[in-house]
Amino acid sequence: MDIRKFSLPEIIFGHGSMEYTGSYALQLGAKKVFVVSDPGLEKSGWVKKLLQIIEASSLRWVYYSNVSSNPRDYEVHTGAELYKAEGADVVIALGGGSPMDMAKGVATVVSNGGTIQDYEGANLITSPLPPMIFLPSTAGSGSDISQFAIITDVGRKVKMSLISRSLTPNVSIIDPELLSTVDDDLLISSAVDALAHAVESYVSLIAHTLTETQALKAIHLILENMQPALKTRNPNALEFLSIAATAAGMSFSNASLGACHAIAHSLGGFFDTTHGMVHPVLLPAVMKYNLPACEEKMATIGEIVLGKRLSSARQTAAGGITRLHEIFLELGTATHFREIVNDRSAFPQICEMATKDACLLTNPRPATAEELLAICEEVW
Amino acid sequence: MDIRKFSLPEIIFGHGSMEYTGSYALQLGAKKVFVVSDPGLEKSGWVKKLLQIIEASSLRWVYYSNVSSNPRDYEVHTGAELYKAEGADVVIALGGGSPMDMAKGVATVVSNGGTIQDYEGANLITSPLPPMIFLPSTAGSGSDISQFAIITDVGRKVKMSLISRSLTPNVSIIDPELLSTVDDDLLISSAVDALAHAVESYVSLIAHTLTETQALKAIHLILENMQPALKTRNPNALEFLSIAATAAGMSFSNASLGACHAIAHSLGGFFDTTHGMVHPVLLPAVMKYNLPACEEKMATIGEIVLGKRLSSARQTAAGGITRLHEIFLELGTATHFREIVNDRSAFPQICEMATKDACLLTNPRPATAEELLAICEEVW
Repeated sequence: MDIRKFSLPEIIFGHGSMEYTGSYALQLGAKKVFVVSDPGLEKSGWVKKLLQIIEASSLRWVYYSNVSSNPRDYEVHTGAELYKAEGADVVIALGGGSPMDMAKGVATVVSNGGTIQDYEGANLITSPLPPMIFLPSTAGSGSDISQFAIITDVGRKVKMSLISRSLTPNVSIIDPELLSTVDDDLLISSAVDALAHAVESYVSLIAHTLTETQALKAIHLILENMQPALKTRNPNALEFLSIAATAAGMSFSNASLGACHAIAHSLGGFFDTTHGMVHPVLLPAVMKYNLPACEEKMATIGEIVLGKRLSSARQTAAGGITRLHEIFLELGTATHFREIVNDRSAFPQICEMATKDACLLTNPRPATAEELLAICEEVW
Repeated sequence: MDIRKFSLPEIIFGHGSMEYTGSYALQLGAKKVFVVSDPGLEKSGWVKKLLQIIEASSLRWVYYSNVSSNPRDYEVHTGAELYKAEGADVVIALGGGSPMDMAKGVATVVSNGGTIQDYEGANLITSPLPPMIFLPSTAGSGSDISQFAIITDVGRKVKMSLISRSLTPNVSIIDPELLSTVDDDLLISSAVDALAHAVESYVSLIAHTLTETQALKAIHLILENMQPALKTRNPNALEFLSIAATAAGMSFSNASLGACHAIAHSLGGFFDTTHGMVHPVLLPAVMKYNLPACEEKMATIGEIVLGKRLSSARQTAAGGITRLHEIFLELGTATHFREIVNDRSAFPQICEMATKDACLLTNPRPATAEELLAICEEVW
């Protein structure tokens, strides 16, 4: 038996779709919503706009923005206390992956009790969560689509992966207008995160046709629209980046990820590195490592990256990886670890921790801590 | 504002996935399930197997198989009476489009009251339906994925379209093993139905990237796997036809259909024609009619059908349509109405009714009753 699952939230997509938040909350039975966002989105005016939309539906709200870039266990617990004290009933997240993962953490703890640590791993959430409506403000994390939440256990310096069907929100409202206020760095790191989702889930051991189709579309759209989106904030290009992040989310939520994300989680837990900065460093190196295990698939990626096939699958695959590295250089991202972290001696421990990350289970080529370390050393 | 929705049931896909039916029913709170299927599936042994699986989960069941090929209003009402009399709580359908649409009809009436006629049209179902688990036995209808149910109003001789988010089942369990007992005619008519879903939703006025990606993949998979599936019942080919029907379902459920389905519904209501037999007659003619309104999209379809581009978009599009007609001839399907119905004089009335079908709203080129009649006359 070779059984595959495919599930998604209800997706509402389009310019201005944020306006529907109130009516969807009402449909889900809301009286007082718990809104999670962050100071960046307060500054750009989106939080105020969302709260106005919520109020226009005669809903009460409570607002929580105590969210680090890598959301932390104690922030989840404080949020859960607030949710309960205020008697909230529906969770609304507006943000990149951080506020959305925070919202998932709060929803888990308020409905299932205990601490967020109790749910680290796959399928450990047993009671239904309160309804969740997510509005992604970046085209990257896919948290609004996915069954994943990543929360840092500060004590252990570990980013915990929580994976459960219950972590998919009920509704994802994707309004590409939110991207108009995103700065270059965030636009790039989000798009690169989505690209890594697409590449890793495409070659995942549990990929299947439905996820592969979405993954390839995402790769194509990101490479085609990244530069125009950056240069002019062209609304069409931004919309296609949103669609790409959504498609990549559909893929990785159902096919999981690989070694690049396993190391990125481990590294983020240790150094508190911004997640999207790790991929330009790691992704090409991990792809090179995985190439022998999935040459034909890597060639299909290579063909999209290069816009053509070279004389063999191996060459097309390798050419695509090289070109991807060049694209990251052209975008001005870091492509070596030494540019983003300062302690090389931590890597053996980081790679040891990465072997315990759920994402490594679906990497197309098995990897020991030593092999992961060799990959990291190569891009030090 | 240009808002698009995209929603799906939870999909469980793979050989042997039928075994999960009991545990999913339990998860959805079942004590006594209402099972809908038909005599064909009883004969092939699948109903017995399903009931064994259900019993192995200590669930009670009631069985209903009073389902015509075009499910009828009074069959829905009889089923609803049985459901209520037996105190069932979860609906399970095993079948092609007919048992699945019947199950949707029963679920609608038992939870919303009145008659099935009360829900003809879009978004008229207000109360939640009982949980539904569908197991498609053909690779075609997409009813296990879609927000559509088609029920014949026998009094008016009309196939009613019911469209509502509530009509998407909770879980679609797609076990390609079920296709191993399907005969050639049913395999062909189902695959052609899926092909028509893919083509019509791809050129639909409300298509968007997420639906288009699925539609093109479906067209490709159907054309590539139809012959091997027919000739040898090759398990891989059958699995790809299942995936194609699923992908086409994702597309049309969210982007709707067009003139070919509008006429097919109207014709089926009048003559009780088998739905899948209508498309090989109508689809190429409708595509030819629509070509001027969506030349580039038709060329993209043509490129998949022909395996190459010709010297212009128009030629590629036209070449694809001609080749599709030839493929239908090679499959031995009827390609003229005179082969499947006996009364030419009914067509003005049929085309008049088709203009009222919800599917016509999204056809890429507007069409009056006279224009639909001209299409039908061309393929008489």
